[in-house]
Amino acid sequence: MNDKVEPKTLPGFMELNPNDQVKFDQMKETIAKSYERFGFLPLDTPVIEYSEVLLAKAGGETEKQIYRFKKGDTDLSLRFDLTVPLAKYVAANHNELAFPFKRYQIGKVYRGEKAQQGRYREFYQCDIDIIGDGSLSVINDAQIPSIIYNTFKELGFDNFTICINNRKILNGLFSSLNLSEFATDILRIIDKIEKIGVEAVRGELETLGISKDSIETIINFVLIDGNVDEKLSALNELGIENSLYNEGVNELSSVVEYIRLLGVPEGFFNVDLKIARGLDYYTGTVYETFLNDFRKLGSVCSGGRFDNLAEYYTDKKLPGVGISIGLTRLFYQLNQMNAIKATRTSISDVLVIPMSQEDVAESLKVASKLREEKINTDIFFEDAKMKKKMKYADKWNIPFVVIIGEEERKSSLYTLKDMESGEQRKLTIDELVKFIKL
Amino acid sequence: MNDKVEPKTLPGFMELNPNDQVKFDQMKETIAKSYERFGFLPLDTPVIEYSEVLLAKAGGETEKQIYRFKKGDTDLSLRFDLTVPLAKYVAANHNELAFPFKRYQIGKVYRGEKAQQGRYREFYQCDIDIIGDGSLSVINDAQIPSIIYNTFKELGFDNFTICINNRKILNGLFSSLNLSEFATDILRIIDKIEKIGVEAVRGELETLGISKDSIETIINFVLIDGNVDEKLSALNELGIENSLYNEGVNELSSVVEYIRLLGVPEGFFNVDLKIARGLDYYTGTVYETFLNDFRKLGSVCSGGRFDNLAEYYTDKKLPGVGISIGLTRLFYQLNQMNAIKATRTSISDVLVIPMSQEDVAESLKVASKLREEKINTDIFFEDAKMKKKMKYADKWNIPFVVIIGEEERKSSLYTLKDMESGEQRKLTIDELVKFIKL
Repeated sequence: MNDKVEPKTLPGFMELNPNDQVKFDQMKETIAKSYERFGFLPLDTPVIEYSEVLLAKAGGETEKQIYRFKKGDTDLSLRFDLTVPLAKYVAANHNELAFPFKRYQIGKVYRGEKAQQGRYREFYQCDIDIIGDGSLSVINDAQIPSIIYNTFKELGFDNFTICINNRKILNGLFSSLNLSEFATDILRIIDKIEKIGVEAVRGELETLGISKDSIETIINFVLIDGNVDEKLSALNELGIENSLYNEGVNELSSVVEYIRLLGVPEGFFNVDLKIARGLDYYTGTVYETFLNDFRKLGSVCSGGRFDNLAEYYTDKKLPGVGISIGLTRLFYQLNQMNAIKATRTSISDVLVIPMSQEDVAESLKVASKLREEKINTDIFFEDAKMKKKMKYADKWNIPFVVIIGEEERKSSLYTLKDMESGEQRKLTIDELVKFIKL
Repeated sequence: MNDKVEPKTLPGFMELNPNDQVKFDQMKETIAKSYERFGFLPLDTPVIEYSEVLLAKAGGETEKQIYRFKKGDTDLSLRFDLTVPLAKYVAANHNELAFPFKRYQIGKVYRGEKAQQGRYREFYQCDIDIIGDGSLSVINDAQIPSIIYNTFKELGFDNFTICINNRKILNGLFSSLNLSEFATDILRIIDKIEKIGVEAVRGELETLGISKDSIETIINFVLIDGNVDEKLSALNELGIENSLYNEGVNELSSVVEYIRLLGVPEGFFNVDLKIARGLDYYTGTVYETFLNDFRKLGSVCSGGRFDNLAEYYTDKKLPGVGISIGLTRLFYQLNQMNAIKATRTSISDVLVIPMSQEDVAESLKVASKLREEKINTDIFFEDAKMKKKMKYADKWNIPFVVIIGEEERKSSLYTLKDMESGEQRKLTIDELVKFIKL
């Protein structure tokens, strides 16, 4: 007889085992704490929104990927990012907020992408955005790299580069070459230079009908090499006469100046003129972040400055700057490479094991005492062989086991076993607490 | 011109302002930490599942309320609780787990209920379950109240009662009265006694065609009064000869004995024979929890023992015991009554305010230093009147403001303002750190 339903999970939906979930949760919490360190306020918008609201701006690929359905007569969609819900929230609650509004949100978003290795249809985004009311100082653009720096340091990484560019510089350059009408296409093509190489970019730019001279100018420009100051000098010395270009260079110089004041060490950030960000809506500073030991992951934290967050909902001008970490994909990739820098590997600090049913009462008392001392404590109550109990501790990475039998009960000296070294020692309850807390 | 989309949120979907979200998040984190204190492992199953999997067991009301839709040819549903996904997970990963499997999950679930005040269509459940492989010791049933006790204490409550009953006792009683065929109906009716009163319960029982004598026996039984020990004595002295009844009384006595060993103080738990839990699947111990100062909220944490978690997916017998806190509704109600015991009311510990653009550099340095000391620090960069900057601190409940102007820059003595008392003092950076950390 087999009338059972197969207990399967949808492809493209991450479902971690508890040991991996512990590591995932630690990363998520680290990111949240880092965002809070810089004063970002939490928001938790619904996963479901009116389709009309969510798709006010969307089009093309986004619409195709969206999870959209009706409940009764209501046309609903699952959020596909956290920016549109933020725009809705700020537009709807403008009068209730104090600006600049700095919010973080960490939550699941949904995109019905073609399922493939490492691509998820449900995934966590970890976003921060700073939204100004009418205007927003460029100093905020400098805060962002300092937040990225702090966040990835806290995540345990010490070899990464935050790459910074400014869309105005590129657009100013295109304008100076009389190529403004091609700006979007050129940005889209340049954005791929790391992936497809210079030759392919040259080829694609040619298909736009741009002159060979201009193409070489653009390619030479985005490949300008050197450290931060050398690049800034080069930008100033090129003699490009264009107000947008100059505005961009000035903004970029300010951002660099403030980044230094914020204490981001040299070597952790750089100017990278290749960075364009495919998405249309960035208008100034743009960011990408690379783990240098895992460069093939691509950017692990990206974002930029935009002129107007919520133009589809309100006439108010709401400029902003923000970034996003795609945590689900990042976790998957790092975990595949054994590159998660988790310091927490288990929930329980200790497993209390009564040898027999007679030892349960004493075990409960010991467990309660340990928990009072803020030690996460599991107990194994079930009737089972000691081997099975040890396997349980092992399976869930519990570092210590406290064994309580007749001898322990009578002497009030409990056997503590270090699961890694195998070492055992007999300790009083107070010694137990001290030892486990170490 | 008005081609704007109205930025509205769906009714029945909670969207808190950041100040409330801080309180909500603190409650959520407190619950998670309490669950971890007892060794429960985290799980984060998808929000979307195959309808076939999610609805294997469902029926009636649940099916009607579910958010169900197609993406391509795939029939999908949003989870309506966290128990069914757990059943799926355990059935699918049985060989990979060590039992008893103790998991917690805190996540949003979806029910398309009629929208009304305090009823949510998207809401957080905070669940723990202990799942045995084939069998599960009754001591686990005693651990649950100790977890409830710890959790609500940590949430800041000190006047609540965990009410415990055992379905076997009631079912044994019904059997001894030859009323087994009516058991489900009687349980359903008794469950409402607090809400509708004794008279109404009597009336409803009469419509089942039960004899007046039996009805009085049942009502007198569930209303047995006294403290824990008095009730247990009464249960033993009633002379009811029924094996299920006796099994239930023995289990309940054991649970009480172990609860005491686990250190739950008298007065925080009691036996309540009225508690039946409407849901069918509980088979032994059942729990409800009442905040005695807010009794009208009903039970804020309920659950019980069940024989078989995943029978729709596997032949394996997986008995379990668990509870759930409906956090969204609980938060809404407590917040309405100003009864949230949040100790955290702001994200930022301090707001740094440069008096003018000349003071920004110094302000960035001070902010970086504070953040290094793990102090959550916001900075107000925008050009604005001091009044507006103070309003910002006020709006987001930031307790301290550090003002940095020319004088402060020159003296390296920074003005700290206590936003509550209005007091100001001039402090060095080290004194600032110490003062804010207090």
